[in-house]
Amino acid sequence: MDEFLKVYNEQVAPLSQQQQGRAGTVLLTNRDTGKVLSVTFWGTKEDMESSESSGFYSNQIAKVASFLAADPVTERYDVTVQRIG
Amino acid sequence: MDEFLKVYNEQVAPLSQQQQGRAGTVLLTNRDTGKVLSVTFWGTKEDMESSESSGFYSNQIAKVASFLAADPVTERYDVTVQRIG
Repeated sequence: MDEFLKVYNEQVAPLSQQQQGRAGTVLLTNRDTGKVLSVTFWGTKEDMESSESSGFYSNQIAKVASFLAADPVTERYDVTVQRIG
Repeated sequence: MDEFLKVYNEQVAPLSQQQQGRAGTVLLTNRDTGKVLSVTFWGTKEDMESSESSGFYSNQIAKVASFLAADPVTERYDVTVQRIG
């Protein structure tokens, strides 16, 4: 987990923040199960799709792949409710 | 999905916002898969645990249970990164 977080913070997060239309990121971790949920919010569906079609998303996955015990699962959702703070 | 959202918005969300220590809510939905992720952020681990031990959490699940095709899965995480907006 620590090695994953180091690469995430140093190599993935800074680039992610520069992506067109990126509206936010939440990284959820559980050290007991070893499970990580990385949630990225996008301004539009097109922004999300661009992050995948450009190869950006798969490039970021590749950086952390060696720390993962299983293939990452990608899911896409509509943000139906968002109330933070 | 629509019935679920109606009950969620009218009967679950208003009560959730009044819970001690609640720091935010994100509801993610996918109409293609029918999958819903309800993410609640808490100020402290104790606030999260209280929402479960008080019966609040199971009471909210009970309200929407009839709209679910499978038993809901509950997972708990640390918020390692949170950048919204």
